[in-house]
Amino acid sequence: MTRQELIKQIHDKQSFLCVGLDTDLSKIPQSLMKTVRKEYEEEEYTYGMLLEFNASIIDATAPYCVAYKPNLAFYEAYGMEGIAAFESTIEYLNENYPDHFVIADAKRGDIGNTSAMYAKTFFEQYDVDALTVAPYMGEDSVMPFLGYKDKWVILLALTSNKGSHDFQLMEDVKGERLFEKVLKTSQQWGDKDNMMYVVGATQGRMFEDIRKLVPDHFLLVPGIGAQGGSLEEVCRYGMIPGDVGLLVNSSRGIIYASQGEDFAEKAAEKAQELQQQMAAIMKG
Amino acid sequence: MTRQELIKQIHDKQSFLCVGLDTDLSKIPQSLMKTVRKEYEEEEYTYGMLLEFNASIIDATAPYCVAYKPNLAFYEAYGMEGIAAFESTIEYLNENYPDHFVIADAKRGDIGNTSAMYAKTFFEQYDVDALTVAPYMGEDSVMPFLGYKDKWVILLALTSNKGSHDFQLMEDVKGERLFEKVLKTSQQWGDKDNMMYVVGATQGRMFEDIRKLVPDHFLLVPGIGAQGGSLEEVCRYGMIPGDVGLLVNSSRGIIYASQGEDFAEKAAEKAQELQQQMAAIMKG
Repeated sequence: MTRQELIKQIHDKQSFLCVGLDTDLSKIPQSLMKTVRKEYEEEEYTYGMLLEFNASIIDATAPYCVAYKPNLAFYEAYGMEGIAAFESTIEYLNENYPDHFVIADAKRGDIGNTSAMYAKTFFEQYDVDALTVAPYMGEDSVMPFLGYKDKWVILLALTSNKGSHDFQLMEDVKGERLFEKVLKTSQQWGDKDNMMYVVGATQGRMFEDIRKLVPDHFLLVPGIGAQGGSLEEVCRYGMIPGDVGLLVNSSRGIIYASQGEDFAEKAAEKAQELQQQMAAIMKG
Repeated sequence: MTRQELIKQIHDKQSFLCVGLDTDLSKIPQSLMKTVRKEYEEEEYTYGMLLEFNASIIDATAPYCVAYKPNLAFYEAYGMEGIAAFESTIEYLNENYPDHFVIADAKRGDIGNTSAMYAKTFFEQYDVDALTVAPYMGEDSVMPFLGYKDKWVILLALTSNKGSHDFQLMEDVKGERLFEKVLKTSQQWGDKDNMMYVVGATQGRMFEDIRKLVPDHFLLVPGIGAQGGSLEEVCRYGMIPGDVGLLVNSSRGIIYASQGEDFAEKAAEKAQELQQQMAAIMKG
């Protein structure tokens, strides 16, 4: 997907919401389990539950969001059935919701020949739009992901977790912090048309400093909801006039809004609430 | 596996060699393909080739090495069959070579609840001894991997690739570099009995600086062979008297020593060559 297509979708829907598909079997509603037990073979129950849950959440939330972000850890945890469910979820999205931006949250990054294998896997085999990448290993660990037309690297810059303070805020003699060095250096590798950055919603006013370095790039923002970040603050300091430049993610707050039979409806309600807040901010 | 068991194995075999299982279908010998076509169903050819290649390499090299390191990128690239082959390779190792140390080279690391999922996958489901982990996201991204008895985190410190210079050598006002901060800070999270560090063989005399900070920890050292690092230099500056404290990895130089019918024999020869160099260094 191109930057312009993404921006158009954001304006059409008045939303820059990304729904995180951190699908956890222990939180899947009993009612869905019953359906899966009827419709799938026993050796495919895990696959069936992950996929049916995702499909229900996607169908319910699609009008209110512009992106989906399955988190690979949650699929790898269920072995081959989990990987199959990840693959089928991407197919389901690409077939039924081709306008939605699909992010594989995998935080990969390795020496060049290995990163090239990961790029092939995610961009050719699974055909997602974007992959999250860890910057620690530098240029040749990131470049192989940038050779694909209309595909995106989303590089970790300043993450939402407490541990982000351990290394990302390290300062050099000039007062430049590690996450700032990542933002600056990586602009020699990619540009606003194939690179975004992860910046946690919990980082508040740091968005001001970040926008000085990357005024035009999209930011993927996890950490509202369960992790405590504020949508208003993220938008006040991080939004780009016109282009918006934000994809704000919510996972648990949406997909586990209810564990009853109404789980999809409740997910839709939570997504719509966020979409309405976003629409108000975009108008304001 | 405990540190003492690993050290005992190193002394018994006079080797601290790790064989990297970066198994690439495009480099698998024709002769093996023929065997697989006879013995496997067509829909399992990929699985069969990856597993049979690995089993042959393992059987041939086991006397000369103390560790194996499958690189997840190479298995994920083949989708579910690849993951199945990774899983079966680990089972093959754990059943037939329980004394060998098994490292999943996956470079994971995410916010706490996600890292916990990865830890469960690799340490419970696949039952490997160790996992490589990227440090960028800090303490809570690493801690979930440290709660498993006799399991190890191998944290990226100073990697073997050119991009290691982009961020890992960044200096703070006191002249402390990022990789040094990673080494120091992470010693508050784990110790020499559950944590190792990745240090590239291409880093030469940097091993001296590293040993000042982590005198007792094992180092996993990629980058000899194809990447150009020197075994002698690594040992001169990195080896710990008595405990050795090194696992030196070679992947392509061993497993693709020949693409003929003699691929396993040639792999054994290359592994034995390295083992003999290691034995000489350990005696010297």
